[in-house]
Amino acid sequence: MRLFNFSPGPAMLPESVLQEAQADLLDWKGRGLSIMEMSHRGEDFLGVARKADADLRKLMGIPDHYKILFLQGGATGQNAAVPLNLIGEKTTADYIHTGHWSSRSISEAEKYCTVNIAASGESSGFWHVPAQSEWRLSADPAYVHICANETISGVEYQFTPDTGDIPLVADMSSNILSRPVDVSRFGVIYAGAQKNIGPTGVTVVIVREDLLGKVKKACPSVIDYTLEEKFEWMYNTPPTFPVYVSGLVFTWLLEQGGVEAIEKTNIAKAEKLYAEIDRTDFYTNKVRKEDRSRMNATFFLPNEELDDRFAEEAKAYGLLNLKGHKIAGGIRASIYNAMPMAGVDKLIEFMRLFEKKYG
Amino acid sequence: MRLFNFSPGPAMLPESVLQEAQADLLDWKGRGLSIMEMSHRGEDFLGVARKADADLRKLMGIPDHYKILFLQGGATGQNAAVPLNLIGEKTTADYIHTGHWSSRSISEAEKYCTVNIAASGESSGFWHVPAQSEWRLSADPAYVHICANETISGVEYQFTPDTGDIPLVADMSSNILSRPVDVSRFGVIYAGAQKNIGPTGVTVVIVREDLLGKVKKACPSVIDYTLEEKFEWMYNTPPTFPVYVSGLVFTWLLEQGGVEAIEKTNIAKAEKLYAEIDRTDFYTNKVRKEDRSRMNATFFLPNEELDDRFAEEAKAYGLLNLKGHKIAGGIRASIYNAMPMAGVDKLIEFMRLFEKKYG
Repeated sequence: MRLFNFSPGPAMLPESVLQEAQADLLDWKGRGLSIMEMSHRGEDFLGVARKADADLRKLMGIPDHYKILFLQGGATGQNAAVPLNLIGEKTTADYIHTGHWSSRSISEAEKYCTVNIAASGESSGFWHVPAQSEWRLSADPAYVHICANETISGVEYQFTPDTGDIPLVADMSSNILSRPVDVSRFGVIYAGAQKNIGPTGVTVVIVREDLLGKVKKACPSVIDYTLEEKFEWMYNTPPTFPVYVSGLVFTWLLEQGGVEAIEKTNIAKAEKLYAEIDRTDFYTNKVRKEDRSRMNATFFLPNEELDDRFAEEAKAYGLLNLKGHKIAGGIRASIYNAMPMAGVDKLIEFMRLFEKKYG
Repeated sequence: MRLFNFSPGPAMLPESVLQEAQADLLDWKGRGLSIMEMSHRGEDFLGVARKADADLRKLMGIPDHYKILFLQGGATGQNAAVPLNLIGEKTTADYIHTGHWSSRSISEAEKYCTVNIAASGESSGFWHVPAQSEWRLSADPAYVHICANETISGVEYQFTPDTGDIPLVADMSSNILSRPVDVSRFGVIYAGAQKNIGPTGVTVVIVREDLLGKVKKACPSVIDYTLEEKFEWMYNTPPTFPVYVSGLVFTWLLEQGGVEAIEKTNIAKAEKLYAEIDRTDFYTNKVRKEDRSRMNATFFLPNEELDDRFAEEAKAYGLLNLKGHKIAGGIRASIYNAMPMAGVDKLIEFMRLFEKKYG
C-alpha cells in the first residue's frame, strides 16, 4: 500500500506516472527493450526527449529564445555552472542569501568570481525573504542569483524581483512548476528534478540564448551550456530514465490542467495546513507570514522530544518523512505537486490527535 | 517480447534485474513508496547504497584503501574531474591515445594541464593498442591515463600497463566488471554505468585514498573526489534510481559467479563471434587480432550499402542496434555482460543467412 510521503526530495511522484513506468519497464511500447536500455540517439528516445522539451515549454510558457537543457549534477552542479557560464568578462555576481541553499550557491560561486551578498535574511535567522527595496546590488554584476524557495526553513519568494537589464538567475529546484512564473523575467532558471519534476539524477536548465557563448575555459563540458546546447544536451550520454520519468510527470501535469490549475491546489493545501498550525499554540511556524513556503511547511512543537515523537508516531499513522532538517529541527511537511489534498487532510487529522494526546 | 539489444550504451540489462525493479517500482519492499521517492539520507536508501559499495568491492576485489564514489556526469564529467583532482602541484599528465574516447579525455584535460600524448594508435587508424614498450612517458607526469576499451573501433587493452609509482588512471566505462582487474595497479578507475553497471546517470569512481586532498579550487563540488568522499558521495543528492539498479546488477553478477565466471562467458561469446567474422571474407574486422575488444566487435561488409541493409534486416530478425558508430561506419555488435550467448548465437545465425542471400 502506498503511503503519504512528505520527504523534501527525492519526493513523492504521481502514482499514475509510476504505474506507466512500471508497465513499460521491460518492454517500452512494444519495442522489445526497456527505455533504460535504449540508445539516447535512437528515434524512440529522441521522441521522448523532444516531447519532454515541448511539454515543459507549454507548462511554463517558455519563449522560443530560451533553450532547455536536461543535464546531470543537480543544483549543486549548477552552482558552479552559473558563474562559469555567465561571468564572462565581468568579475562580480550578486547573490541574495536566504538560507542554507543560497549559502551553498554562494560558497560555490566564490571559487569562480567575487560574490556580493546584496541582501540577507540573517537578521531574522533566515525566517524571511528580504524585500527588494532592501537589496544593495553592486555596480556592475554579471547576474543576480536567488533561491526561489528554501526547503529547510520553508521560506519562498512570493514576488519576481526586477533586476532590469541584469540577468536574474533562479534556483527553482523546490518550487518549479508549482506556480506560474514569467520566464522572460529570468536569464537562467535551474532545478534539480527531485521535488516537482521527477526522480533525482536530472537537472533542468532554462537559459536565454543571448547568454550563451561566454563560457570560461575552466568549465567542464558536462555543465557547459554553450556546448550542451549545440549538441541538444547530448554531448555526453544523458540520464535517460530520469528524463523519461520527468516527461511522464509533465504529461500528468498537463492532464491536471497545467501549472495554473496545480497552483490553485497548492494554495489550498498550504492554506489549510498553515491554518491548522496557526489554530493552536501547540504548533508554531517561525516564518514571516508573507514569505511562507507553499512547498515546505515547517513547524515546531513545545519541545524537541515532542518533535521527535510527532515524526515517529506520524510514520506509524502512514505519514512518512516529517522530521525537519537537522539544521532547523522541528517538523517539515513537504507538499509538492504530487502530494494530494488527501495527504494534507490526513496530516491535519493526525496533528489534532497528537495535540489531544500530548497538548 | 524482449529482443536482443546490441546497443553500445545505454545497453542491455539482465532481465531479472528489470523484473525486480518493476515489481518494487511503486512500493519498495512494502515501505509504501518507490525507491525513487525515498530520501537518499534515509536508512532504506543508505542500506541500498552500502550494499552496492560492498558488492562492487567483492566483485572487483577492491582493497580497503580505495574509496568508491557514485557520482553524476558520466565519463565525460570524469575527463575534467581527473586532472582537477589529481594534477596537484604538477603541470603535466600523460595520455595514451587509442581512439575517440581517449581523444575526448585528452581535449578535456587540456583545459586544466599540459597533456603529453605518450603513445597513439593513429599509425593504424586506431585499429590497435600501442604496446607499452612504445610508450614515451614525460619526465614527471601527475598520472598516466588510458581508455581500457574503445567502443567505436572495438580495441581493448589485454594487459595492465606498469607505470611504477605514477598513478595509472583508467576509463573503464565499457569493460568494467567484464574481466578481473588488479585494482591495486591503478590510482583511479572510473566508468559511466550504461554498459556493464546499470542505467545511464550514475558514474562509478574508484580512487586510491592517498590521491585525495589535492583537488584544485576550480573543481566543481559535484566532481570533487575529496569532498564527495568526506560526505560518502552525498554532498549533493545522488542519482538514487540508477544507483539502485546498479546494485541489482551487482547482485545478479555475484549470482552468476562473479567477474571470473562472467569473463569465461565473455571470452566464449567474443571467440565465437570473431570466429564467424574470420570464417569468411564477406565480413572483415580491422582490429589487430591481439587487441580485439571482447565487448564491441566491429566488422564491415563488402560495401556500405550492405552494411546498412545488414543492420536493417537484423532489426527485423530481432537483433537491435547493430549499426556501427558514424565515425567508424560498418557494423558493431556490443556484447556486454548482460548479452546472453543466445544473442550471439542468433546474430551468427543471421550473419550466415545474410551472407547466403547477398554474398
